[in-house]
Amino acid sequence: MQSCARAWRVVTRTVSARERRRVCEKLSGRQAFTNASVNVNTVRGLRTTAAAGSRKIERILPRHDDFAERHIGPGDKEKREMLNTLGLGSVSELIENTIPSSIRLQRSLKMDDPVCENEILESLQKIASKNKLWRSYIGMGYYDCSVPPVIQRNLLENSGWVTQYTPYQPEVAQGRLESLLNYQTMVCDITGMAVANASLLDEGTAAAEAMQLCHSYIGVKAVLKLPHEMDFSGKDVSGVLFQYPDTEGRVEDFSALVDRAHKGGALACCATDLLALCVLRPPGEFGVDVALGSSQRFGVPMCYGGPHAAFFSVKENLVRMMPGRMVGVTRDAAGKEVYRLALQTREQHIRRDKATSNICTAQALLANMAAMYALYHGPQGLRHIAERTHNATLILAEGLIRAGHKLQHETFFDTLKIHCGVAAKDILEKAVQRQVNLRVYSEGVLGVSLDETVTERDLDDLLWIFGCESSAELIAEKMNERTKGLLASPFKRTSKFLTHPVFNSYHSETNIVRYMKRLENKDISLVHSMIPLPITWQEFANIHPFVPLDQAEGYQQLFRQLEKDLCEITGYDKISFQPNSGAQGEYAGLAAIKAYLNSKGESHRTVCLIPKSAHGTNPASAQMAGMKVQVVEVDKDGNIDVVHLKAMVDKHKANLAAIMITYPSTNGVFEENVSEVCELIHQNGGQVYLDGANMNAQMMGSKGLRHATEVAILNANYMAKRLESHYKILFRGFVAHEFILDVRPFKKTANIEAVDIAKRLQDYGTDDILLRTPQTPTESEDKGEMDRFCDALVAIRQEIADIEEGRMDTRVNPLKMAPHSLACIASSTWDRPYSREYAAFPMPFVRPETKFWPTISRIDDIYGDQHLVCTCPPMEVYESPYEERASS
Amino acid sequence: MQSCARAWRVVTRTVSARERRRVCEKLSGRQAFTNASVNVNTVRGLRTTAAAGSRKIERILPRHDDFAERHIGPGDKEKREMLNTLGLGSVSELIENTIPSSIRLQRSLKMDDPVCENEILESLQKIASKNKLWRSYIGMGYYDCSVPPVIQRNLLENSGWVTQYTPYQPEVAQGRLESLLNYQTMVCDITGMAVANASLLDEGTAAAEAMQLCHSYIGVKAVLKLPHEMDFSGKDVSGVLFQYPDTEGRVEDFSALVDRAHKGGALACCATDLLALCVLRPPGEFGVDVALGSSQRFGVPMCYGGPHAAFFSVKENLVRMMPGRMVGVTRDAAGKEVYRLALQTREQHIRRDKATSNICTAQALLANMAAMYALYHGPQGLRHIAERTHNATLILAEGLIRAGHKLQHETFFDTLKIHCGVAAKDILEKAVQRQVNLRVYSEGVLGVSLDETVTERDLDDLLWIFGCESSAELIAEKMNERTKGLLASPFKRTSKFLTHPVFNSYHSETNIVRYMKRLENKDISLVHSMIPLPITWQEFANIHPFVPLDQAEGYQQLFRQLEKDLCEITGYDKISFQPNSGAQGEYAGLAAIKAYLNSKGESHRTVCLIPKSAHGTNPASAQMAGMKVQVVEVDKDGNIDVVHLKAMVDKHKANLAAIMITYPSTNGVFEENVSEVCELIHQNGGQVYLDGANMNAQMMGSKGLRHATEVAILNANYMAKRLESHYKILFRGFVAHEFILDVRPFKKTANIEAVDIAKRLQDYGTDDILLRTPQTPTESEDKGEMDRFCDALVAIRQEIADIEEGRMDTRVNPLKMAPHSLACIASSTWDRPYSREYAAFPMPFVRPETKFWPTISRIDDIYGDQHLVCTCPPMEVYESPYEERASS
Repeated sequence: MQSCARAWRVVTRTVSARERRRVCEKLSGRQAFTNASVNVNTVRGLRTTAAAGSRKIERILPRHDDFAERHIGPGDKEKREMLNTLGLGSVSELIENTIPSSIRLQRSLKMDDPVCENEILESLQKIASKNKLWRSYIGMGYYDCSVPPVIQRNLLENSGWVTQYTPYQPEVAQGRLESLLNYQTMVCDITGMAVANASLLDEGTAAAEAMQLCHSYIGVKAVLKLPHEMDFSGKDVSGVLFQYPDTEGRVEDFSALVDRAHKGGALACCATDLLALCVLRPPGEFGVDVALGSSQRFGVPMCYGGPHAAFFSVKENLVRMMPGRMVGVTRDAAGKEVYRLALQTREQHIRRDKATSNICTAQALLANMAAMYALYHGPQGLRHIAERTHNATLILAEGLIRAGHKLQHETFFDTLKIHCGVAAKDILEKAVQRQVNLRVYSEGVLGVSLDETVTERDLDDLLWIFGCESSAELIAEKMNERTKGLLASPFKRTSKFLTHPVFNSYHSETNIVRYMKRLENKDISLVHSMIPLPITWQEFANIHPFVPLDQAEGYQQLFRQLEKDLCEITGYDKISFQPNSGAQGEYAGLAAIKAYLNSKGESHRTVCLIPKSAHGTNPASAQMAGMKVQVVEVDKDGNIDVVHLKAMVDKHKANLAAIMITYPSTNGVFEENVSEVCELIHQNGGQVYLDGANMNAQMMGSKGLRHATEVAILNANYMAKRLESHYKILFRGFVAHEFILDVRPFKKTANIEAVDIAKRLQDYGTDDILLRTPQTPTESEDKGEMDRFCDALVAIRQEIADIEEGRMDTRVNPLKMAPHSLACIASSTWDRPYSREYAAFPMPFVRPETKFWPTISRIDDIYGDQHLVCTCPPMEVYESPYEERASS
Repeated sequence: MQSCARAWRVVTRTVSARERRRVCEKLSGRQAFTNASVNVNTVRGLRTTAAAGSRKIERILPRHDDFAERHIGPGDKEKREMLNTLGLGSVSELIENTIPSSIRLQRSLKMDDPVCENEILESLQKIASKNKLWRSYIGMGYYDCSVPPVIQRNLLENSGWVTQYTPYQPEVAQGRLESLLNYQTMVCDITGMAVANASLLDEGTAAAEAMQLCHSYIGVKAVLKLPHEMDFSGKDVSGVLFQYPDTEGRVEDFSALVDRAHKGGALACCATDLLALCVLRPPGEFGVDVALGSSQRFGVPMCYGGPHAAFFSVKENLVRMMPGRMVGVTRDAAGKEVYRLALQTREQHIRRDKATSNICTAQALLANMAAMYALYHGPQGLRHIAERTHNATLILAEGLIRAGHKLQHETFFDTLKIHCGVAAKDILEKAVQRQVNLRVYSEGVLGVSLDETVTERDLDDLLWIFGCESSAELIAEKMNERTKGLLASPFKRTSKFLTHPVFNSYHSETNIVRYMKRLENKDISLVHSMIPLPITWQEFANIHPFVPLDQAEGYQQLFRQLEKDLCEITGYDKISFQPNSGAQGEYAGLAAIKAYLNSKGESHRTVCLIPKSAHGTNPASAQMAGMKVQVVEVDKDGNIDVVHLKAMVDKHKANLAAIMITYPSTNGVFEENVSEVCELIHQNGGQVYLDGANMNAQMMGSKGLRHATEVAILNANYMAKRLESHYKILFRGFVAHEFILDVRPFKKTANIEAVDIAKRLQDYGTDDILLRTPQTPTESEDKGEMDRFCDALVAIRQEIADIEEGRMDTRVNPLKMAPHSLACIASSTWDRPYSREYAAFPMPFVRPETKFWPTISRIDDIYGDQHLVCTCPPMEVYESPYEERASS
């Protein structure tokens, strides 16, 4: 709710799915597949309204179906009605009033011809078939895994989960919050740590955040070396990061290192592997302060390298320093134990220019997948999988030794580094014959990483490839697994994990489906999927990121096409697909600017100007890139205050590194003088970073994009018009794609704050009105939908007036008591000065059969932050109700 | 509800998905893909508990995951608890008590080794790749179509729709009922007929049912000839059936034939095509009495021939003769307009031995898909698709004529019969080069049927194949489509269709998704899908049934494997996969028996014995196969009354054709003397038809099946034990997989009937307890689930006792007022002698956040049947609520 603590922002956007994802990134952390969906969405963006055929056959045999029209909500009749409301004659008149001609693109974009919806899938299928599905034993942080079909089907491929909205409103997000709490509990249990967050972007980010945390916590400069070279005696080291097991597969005893680090005043961070820890002594048991890693192999496909959820867990004393989102337990107004995002006050939209970490970034969907994988297998199942994988590695190791190869490390979990006894070339040739990828270290040194999918046949293939004459069966016959391997070593895990009932109740297919459905149904979701995402097609899903390029030609083709289109749209020459989120993109952009300036010998340029209208992540990114943030004011219309900018540039010109502009801005304004701004910065030796999160609204290329953009702008202006006589709208005039309602005055007049309005809007929620506040309808919403949303806001304004004018109590009123849960409405007891119907069905369109009910009463954030509980509480909820009344 | 008018039946079953489908067939008509899912389910059935490995490697490297264990609900601990309740020491003790040793299979079934869940998908993928995806222009009732991805994703692939249970309880099935009502309205509108049913099994069945209807209605013998040979003058013809357009593509004026038929006292039936009727004058406008056909091309994949939904529509006066299910409008106890199955009293479970049609059979899921397709496209969209398809056919026809071919018919919609000007062999060779299938009539005569997927490139390919030197573009350039084709002929449709708001409101992706979700959420569903069904994989979905066999090798392989396994399980020699439902299987079996007897010169054998314990469809099938039904009594334990059977055999032995046994019976009893019965029938010259709907429970072959069976029997006996002190259980002793609770006494003691208990159980409904009454948990339910179900029944028994003992009113009580809708509970007004909580949350496990709410109050069946409305009523519901209050 904090994002709207000051005012209500109403946003309409273009190319909704993509935009929506960007918004999710910014507000709630990564929700969905980044790489894959960028590709898909861009392809999708290409589908546009066909030009009326210039050839006669195009009139006789027109396009089968025009998807752009399907995607855009309002029809012609509705558009006319909305234009009437605005007092305008045409959409172009509106556009002229909205977008300054100086910044409108004067030519058409060069993009491929539009195609129909079914054709997209067909062409993606052809592209997919260009990827080759070899077995990859490369390891290095990516492992094939068995995605339980029941989870793939009901979670990953289920739009109810994929598009779940940000859990800012916990009253309508208890399902996903519960699943993320399971994730945190799983990470804590398996790593042996006290608290964990709800995931980070990827393992690399997690590692960097760990170092950042050490630095902030210890407060001295971090110097990174190889573990055994570490010298803590100077007390000038803030942290040490090591891998356990490491990339070569070695399992090493790090307890001495951890002790030395602690004695030297440094923190110990451990990058680790969840599956290995099911049989290995966990880092929490030898004093580690931060444990992190990737949860990919817990049931998430490799997808050529991502996205996957990183985990991050810390000791109790570090909890308030931990980056990332965290789900916590608190109570609601009715005293019930409930879940919500904990410690939100740390987030960048609050701290803004003080933030030093893009703290809100998460991979919720994939964290949920991993959590469900743990629920489905339970501790026994996970241990079984880990032991099986380890045993397969033991068999392989034995065979390799018999065949005359040497192993680099004696103690391993699933990964072997092999000094080949014969020419590696011959081995690799045989691997090609069996369509197997190995890790190549250097001449004569190869690596093999096994995973849960390994079968006896796979082992036989590997043994044949390495020239072993025994079969896996023969090797196994002579092995005594009880005296071999980790389980017979001091590294063996002895502590229990995942003992909570939630990890021991849903092992049957029926039970896990119902559990997932029960969580899903508690949450408002967009329930809105365009084309079936091909992310689960095995040709996209099952590709290891380090396979030879010729096995990933399908991916290469998507990247090339995407780069071409993005270059055309942005007018730039090259695109990097490396950044995995908007925030990472900012960091990468600023790092590039910094490197460029340094290369010119201008390393003194470190000042980064950031207008107040810029995104909240901007200042954090600038700080992380080593720049100094200076804030630039905006004028009353939401534009950059050019006078102030000029003064700031003048003041800092010697050290000016960059300006960061969000364009169009978060205030919904197209900056007319953006060219002027750029020129000013360039003249003074700086670079311009443009945050394109809202860029599509400018992007008027092919017809479909233009149409979508026009409708988004029309929608925003129509809503602004309908609301302007009821609310004060900031930066009014014609708006771009969003606008801000100013609700600050109600605090004085009626004791009502933005949060009360937000909670009350939940009571107006149907499965149509999706409470996408603070964001609202895109171009895909039709007029009826926007009208219902405006109706709700207008009715709420009336409720506020009732308080203002004394007709309703200032403390016990529908806004302060909102949201009204079903339990509250259905209770025999009702002592409010308004009726049940007024509370729950405040408008004719909110009907019992379609209303979306908040599952809890209003959340108590302060209580939760004061009594921080971030793992599953031991709850009676999980017990069989039958046992309570076994008498029957 | 009528199926339980007498008593409550509780059933536990084995191999649930498959069984559940069979139950659906019998109770609600076909719900899901028959062919495809039979295959899948059989493959699934093979996955069994692995034997503890006899090879050492199987201990060191055991199976990755044991799916059978996932599928079976109760764990070891729960099983022990249940056995304790039953006073038994082991499962085998239970089995010995349940299944007579004389009928237990004494050897293991020979079936392929079990495989893991993910391996199934992998092997299905390999099988799928053996099917070849050529373009098929064969026609003959099957057309490629563009399945809207939004519908495929959110309906066909959504377990919430796929597994929707039978809508016997309309209070928790309003969503699906509304969709089926849309289907009926769509059929009526497009065909121009007055009423339609909710679909039939396939077009062939629809045609046979039409003739059956004519026969019943007119009451004279039906003699079928070709239309133009028809002579009605003798007044001895009951009906005439013709195709419009016909299989060769011809569009003919049948009005004279219809008039002649009517004058001769016969009915006119028209097999037709929904897409063609979007531009063609509909049969309802030239006097046709029955219009029927397949709705496959409305967005349902061809799937190598089925399943698809047939439509069936009649004139007003024939409505009560119409076969199949029909959704109608009625009101609920609160006076609200609601939907339910109309005229249920006609159904076979009521009329039983008087039934002459397997009236309940329907293809609900596929009918819903077709209805959503019509909603998504709307009338303009459908007309656009029809015109486009027709225009493509006009271009092709023009090209063929130019190339020197002759067309058989001048007037056509999408199908051409071509007398080739060159050797057909050459044309077919070129077709093979382009991977195109044509229809081959005879030497020199070929056929082409186009469909909505046709593109300019397809036309160019066809023109090239037929040796036309023009391209489609050049032909189109010289064409005047306004003076050509159907739209310039008297056949042009002038009447409007699909004018109801429901067909004009959901054309945008967002709107249709929300509409589907809104309907889905009103319904209780199993929300339970095992592995992702491969039915939507294009290699299975997009195969025309008449492609050359070498293009369907994947399908052939599935059929062969399925036949092998079914032969092993049943002990028979050959399997026919032709029957598309259980009822069709009965008919086919009896027809085979009849043909066999006739072939032996024993055509006088026409008596079919049917025990009272047999399935309700049996008598209807026997009648349809031309047999005379004689009922055999059952004894107090539910077994066939052998004394009565002997008497009946003795009485009818001269004319004995067959006995139909359902085994185990619907009373949940394993007939110990089944061998004796068979011998008796065989000795007297008859044949035995065995209905295997419950057969799996006998089938103790491989370990997984055995385990599933044992658990199903254990579950049933456990529930019987828990309920026996509260309810009278018919045919008690140890039960097989189901048992019957006798609630008849409550009518006298408390004015309570089975229907009241059923409705009251809805109030106990959570998303766990799925109200699968009269069927209940299978082996996949765990003990907690069964306990909750028993708890509910025990609590209801207590509520009945409260009435019996005068503590609760006999008219206003929670049972008579059940179910309690949310609107009723949330209302300010509450004047019942029990509390809101007692009504809505009668047990601790029924909680506000998980309760499944009936969306309406109790249905009024009688009112609905008296005021029959079977198309969408003009409802304010569809209007924008905003318009109601546009003032704001």
